[in-house]
Amino acid sequence: MATAKASVLEQFKAPLVLRTFSVPAKPEPGAMLVRTEMAGICGTDVHLWKGELPIKLPVILGHETVGRIEQLGDGVEKDWSGEPLRVGDRVTWTPGTSCGVCFYCAEKRIPTRCTNRRAYGITLQCDQAPHFLGGYAELHYLNPRTNVFKLPDDLPTESVIGAGCALNTALHGIERTGIGHRDIVVVQGAGPVGIAALACAKTAGASQVIVLGAPKHRLEMAKRFGADCVIDIDQVRTPDERIAKIRELTRGYGADVVLECVGAPAAVVEGMEMCRDGGKYLILGHYCDAGTTAWNPHVVTRKQLQVIGSWASEPRHMKMAIEFLRATQKQFPFAEMVSHRFPLEKANEALATSAAWQSAKSVIVPSLKAS
Amino acid sequence: MATAKASVLEQFKAPLVLRTFSVPAKPEPGAMLVRTEMAGICGTDVHLWKGELPIKLPVILGHETVGRIEQLGDGVEKDWSGEPLRVGDRVTWTPGTSCGVCFYCAEKRIPTRCTNRRAYGITLQCDQAPHFLGGYAELHYLNPRTNVFKLPDDLPTESVIGAGCALNTALHGIERTGIGHRDIVVVQGAGPVGIAALACAKTAGASQVIVLGAPKHRLEMAKRFGADCVIDIDQVRTPDERIAKIRELTRGYGADVVLECVGAPAAVVEGMEMCRDGGKYLILGHYCDAGTTAWNPHVVTRKQLQVIGSWASEPRHMKMAIEFLRATQKQFPFAEMVSHRFPLEKANEALATSAAWQSAKSVIVPSLKAS
Amino acid sequence: MATAKASVLEQFKAPLVLRTFSVPAKPEPGAMLVRTEMAGICGTDVHLWKGELPIKLPVILGHETVGRIEQLGDGVEKDWSGEPLRVGDRVTWTPGTSCGVCFYCAEKRIPTRCTNRRAYGITLQCDQAPHFLGGYAELHYLNPRTNVFKLPDDLPTESVIGAGCALNTALHGIERTGIGHRDIVVVQGAGPVGIAALACAKTAGASQVIVLGAPKHRLEMAKRFGADCVIDIDQVRTPDERIAKIRELTRGYGADVVLECVGAPAAVVEGMEMCRDGGKYLILGHYCDAGTTAWNPHVVTRKQLQVIGSWASEPRHMKMAIEFLRATQKQFPFAEMVSHRFPLEKANEALATSAAWQSAKSVIVPSLKAS
Amino acid sequence: MATAKASVLEQFKAPLVLRTFSVPAKPEPGAMLVRTEMAGICGTDVHLWKGELPIKLPVILGHETVGRIEQLGDGVEKDWSGEPLRVGDRVTWTPGTSCGVCFYCAEKRIPTRCTNRRAYGITLQCDQAPHFLGGYAELHYLNPRTNVFKLPDDLPTESVIGAGCALNTALHGIERTGIGHRDIVVVQGAGPVGIAALACAKTAGASQVIVLGAPKHRLEMAKRFGADCVIDIDQVRTPDERIAKIRELTRGYGADVVLECVGAPAAVVEGMEMCRDGGKYLILGHYCDAGTTAWNPHVVTRKQLQVIGSWASEPRHMKMAIEFLRATQKQFPFAEMVSHRFPLEKANEALATSAAWQSAKSVIVPSLKAS
Repeated sequence: MATAKASVLEQFKAPLVLRTFSVPAKPEPGAMLVRTEMAGICGTDVHLWKGELPIKLPVILGHETVGRIEQLGDGVEKDWSGEPLRVGDRVTWTPGTSCGVCFYCAEKRIPTRCTNRRAYGITLQCDQAPHFLGGYAELHYLNPRTNVFKLPDDLPTESVIGAGCALNTALHGIERTGIGHRDIVVVQGAGPVGIAALACAKTAGASQVIVLGAPKHRLEMAKRFGADCVIDIDQVRTPDERIAKIRELTRGYGADVVLECVGAPAAVVEGMEMCRDGGKYLILGHYCDAGTTAWNPHVVTRKQLQVIGSWASEPRHMKMAIEFLRATQKQFPFAEMVSHRFPLEKANEALATSAAWQSAKSVIVPSLKAS
Repeated sequence: MATAKASVLEQFKAPLVLRTFSVPAKPEPGAMLVRTEMAGICGTDVHLWKGELPIKLPVILGHETVGRIEQLGDGVEKDWSGEPLRVGDRVTWTPGTSCGVCFYCAEKRIPTRCTNRRAYGITLQCDQAPHFLGGYAELHYLNPRTNVFKLPDDLPTESVIGAGCALNTALHGIERTGIGHRDIVVVQGAGPVGIAALACAKTAGASQVIVLGAPKHRLEMAKRFGADCVIDIDQVRTPDERIAKIRELTRGYGADVVLECVGAPAAVVEGMEMCRDGGKYLILGHYCDAGTTAWNPHVVTRKQLQVIGSWASEPRHMKMAIEFLRATQKQFPFAEMVSHRFPLEKANEALATSAAWQSAKSVIVPSLKAS
Repeated sequence: MATAKASVLEQFKAPLVLRTFSVPAKPEPGAMLVRTEMAGICGTDVHLWKGELPIKLPVILGHETVGRIEQLGDGVEKDWSGEPLRVGDRVTWTPGTSCGVCFYCAEKRIPTRCTNRRAYGITLQCDQAPHFLGGYAELHYLNPRTNVFKLPDDLPTESVIGAGCALNTALHGIERTGIGHRDIVVVQGAGPVGIAALACAKTAGASQVIVLGAPKHRLEMAKRFGADCVIDIDQVRTPDERIAKIRELTRGYGADVVLECVGAPAAVVEGMEMCRDGGKYLILGHYCDAGTTAWNPHVVTRKQLQVIGSWASEPRHMKMAIEFLRATQKQFPFAEMVSHRFPLEKANEALATSAAWQSAKSVIVPSLKAS
Repeated sequence: MATAKASVLEQFKAPLVLRTFSVPAKPEPGAMLVRTEMAGICGTDVHLWKGELPIKLPVILGHETVGRIEQLGDGVEKDWSGEPLRVGDRVTWTPGTSCGVCFYCAEKRIPTRCTNRRAYGITLQCDQAPHFLGGYAELHYLNPRTNVFKLPDDLPTESVIGAGCALNTALHGIERTGIGHRDIVVVQGAGPVGIAALACAKTAGASQVIVLGAPKHRLEMAKRFGADCVIDIDQVRTPDERIAKIRELTRGYGADVVLECVGAPAAVVEGMEMCRDGGKYLILGHYCDAGTTAWNPHVVTRKQLQVIGSWASEPRHMKMAIEFLRATQKQFPFAEMVSHRFPLEKANEALATSAAWQSAKSVIVPSLKAS
């Protein structure tokens, strides 16, 4: 019986453990088996490792993955868009699968809040067969009904993983927010979500995008992605100074739209003050629970704000992301976000590099040999 | 030279002082002089009296007023809707006047945030002529460009004052929120804003409106206004119990729309949990600054909420309010909200009754004799 | 082998033929067999009979049906909302089933335009087993994935059939249009769709609903459903007179929203002129192709209109319809719309009565004995 | 008494006549006098000349004008945005002025449909002083309350006139339509409105813009403005072929958004078929009445379309246009649209060149000497 390796989160805040699991003989009908080509380390993985979302262990982390089809279960003929699928095809997929029939899927049409949602690398455990339900592994099993997307030949794997789930998340959040034509947009945060939000804002109507963040290498990346102005929070160190700076850049009023891509509660309090009256504020960086902050709801009334939340993304955002990445390769160097490559055996180092904000994007490439 | 009396806020938290001011000889062109028939005590007046908004004193409080035209300045021929105006006509007006040309009025079309906005009874002082710029007085001077509305004969003054600025505020807030057809709506608060929000929700598409509040006489009023269910917060005493109660009434999910009409920051934290995922939360009760509370922005992301602020109202909401009050007199007994009448000399008592939540609505009727 | 009867459209414009088909031994997994209690005659059935939509024959007409479950296929445990299903339960269902995976279902989220959509009584033929795929029959077979709704005991079958698919259609159309709070609404047409649109408009925010139509008995029904004003097109005979009448009722401007529920192209030209500038016009009555008319697109630009189309409805509108009918039984006498009952053998007479506009709503009750 | 020249439309379809009028001694308070630098010939001028809108004569045509301030009336200190104004400043202005108080301005917030709207070069006659109320003249008088915009030094007059009112119109229309992020957009027409719509679509979120039009030089211009694909209607000659071509370019479904910028009724019928189901159709080119066409309203229902009208523009769109032109000078060569310059004496030739579609944009430059 064939086996393959995976890096497993068995205990929060403890090192991932390299395990060997047996490979399913044949995928069940509707399922498929994929050989992992590249798996991205998402900032959420760091939060999950710390135990900031109540998930059950053991889990193979990794929800941003590209691989090649190794085996197809019966009845799998097409990808999510209707493209034919064959063994050897390079594919990616959405981590989450929604049921389509629950209250949120069917009645309220917000499948991201599906009550039966299960996500690879997050809420699916690996102790039972088929085991391979996360990206940090040599193989990945895709259950029936997984939203699989065949990748076009002219779109490098690095683009898809460099953008990661941050791009899908940003596409969804910006769709919900609705950037007006020629709006002035502020992005709080220059990590993967901030960079993706910047790229989306630039193409969704903004006349000007200002990015606040740190460290320097991330702001450099923001400039390469077209930020009209960057503010280094290591230099402009207080919220009041930063708010004043944004006002100065916006005729004294604040921005039309502010996109929070930080994940720290204090950023939300600061960011609302960066909105002009009547502006919009998207809370996009708070996928994980980072605790409370002292906040005055009067600001929402007085400034007549709209504050929008957006959770993860839908399959159609993955479809948009692939089209977007393909069409804007020259404008947005997502492939170059992939700055650090690790073999599977060094998954802990990959995670540590991300946690320390040393990398733009760390990835695991199982075919690399551990040195 | 003629004189008239007014009750003046000269110092925060100190009793209002009855003053006599000289009456302008003739209104300037575009202005008019009105004899006050009835002036409402708004909850905001209590907050203003306490100094919770940074206004300049001395001020004649009162921004909900009905009066009869005593003198018309040159060039005043029509009301806001184009109806002819004559001496003796019964009128009301919006407290605030926007400039129509500033960034917010002209470029961003949110006149409620006009940078030149001035409001009777709030931001206009009475130490200079024409003095009479608030409702707690025998006369009221209306500057040029004031938005004046002639009242239809079949609409009692009590209806207009009973509804007060709360109705305009609620019409605006609910317009911004957008209640969907057959939405389940929760109203937090059973004061004047809560009751007005209830009436608006009932007619704007809600299938069911649940009101949380106290004391008993306010919940009784809520029932008379058509609340499908009321929850007495003096009985169901903890946020967790109240959230559980709302879930129980909504198949376990929470309401589609929650309208905050309380003005206490903790209510906002509680109320967001009463929304279903993907729901809407209107912060309507926070016209004044009631301080901060510990809040977790993760809730907005995780529940994929929309949080909406709404500040005061526009003149067209006053127009809507008058039509609404006239058309729904049988359904919504706003006139009966006027529960306590005071002569001008007893303005302090009127304010105290409102502050203590003893009245549904206290009003000043200058023609009443002080006993 | 058991058999049952059905009334079959074998040739356009020819009488329906009573046929006997064999009953499936047992429903396939996911399917069920229902005994028809009542089937509505929809105006669309008349158009289908005339051949105005390109459907394939033979077809058992009838897409508005209530029945009791006779047999459940394996795996059928719950209805669309998650309610448990048992033999003997009274149920209804959506005529159309969407695939959930095509371009329109998944990428564009408009399942009404699903490229694989199949509808009972319209696009499913009866010459092959399981035959019973329309309402004009003793039995009805429900394929797997049909959207089935268990009916609450306190909701009469007459309410469901009296409202028919017209109510779902109106709920969908009005959702797409968005009636503003206190909007003035005009409904063109007083047939089943017009009456349903009236009921929806009254509860979705309208301050006033004006209905144009004929004959008298339908306008009487409109009044019972709360029309604030009715205009008899047999009396006010020209478009110009009717447009003038609407202007007169709307301060000279026209209505905020006009809902077309007629199905005649000329009504669209007339109705656009009934909108105020900046108003909305919903084309709801044109499910069938009734040909062209001379139309000037300049009207849309000059009046700055929004013209909205809405096709059929989604399952969630059926869910809304059931809640709506149950909650508003006193306000809207949908059950009384059922004015003419026919046994299955008299399906042709039922159709003729509808075609001649003699009935409010004709229905087939298979358990009735043909006299 | 000083005099100046103007080219006057005295009779529909007859040549414009060069007239000399006396110059007002001093502008009234709030007004100003401007020396015309450049006046654009708009396609609408050709329609007006033919009598296709019911305007009163005599009129000095020209509603796209840039000039330098010659004299300021008392009280004029700032432009529409609050910028200080001085003699010698280069300015432009909106042709139309709305009243701010009528039903459409105040109650319904659509100032483009102001019942008191007056527009330079269209609805203001020149037979009475101050005469100079259109662009085809040496001087231009700006009434009080005109929306005047000081031009930034780094924005050439040619950019402003090359874009003309077409850009404001397109900004308004596209705002009303709402292009989604990554939408596929079709523009019907490659004249000034089509080119402006293309530029707006490219920056408002479109992933791909396809332009249909003729003749060749206009399609070349469309390519320079970034059209992803152009279709020459002189080559693809039938509507059916063109619809098929659009389907081919859009996976068989049609475009998400189609923008009509032609002004011919038949284009509307054709364009609706170019929309995907659930798509949007903007009727932007029908400012003038070009008559009726045979149209089937069933298409709006069946395809579940949204059809949007947009009339002229608001002052804030002029503000947006100036910012847009300044920020996108490298991307969009609007200045190069100005292809033909004429002295005032040759206004008839300028009009003829536009009518014959020989020019991208013809302009009148009064300082040019007639040769």
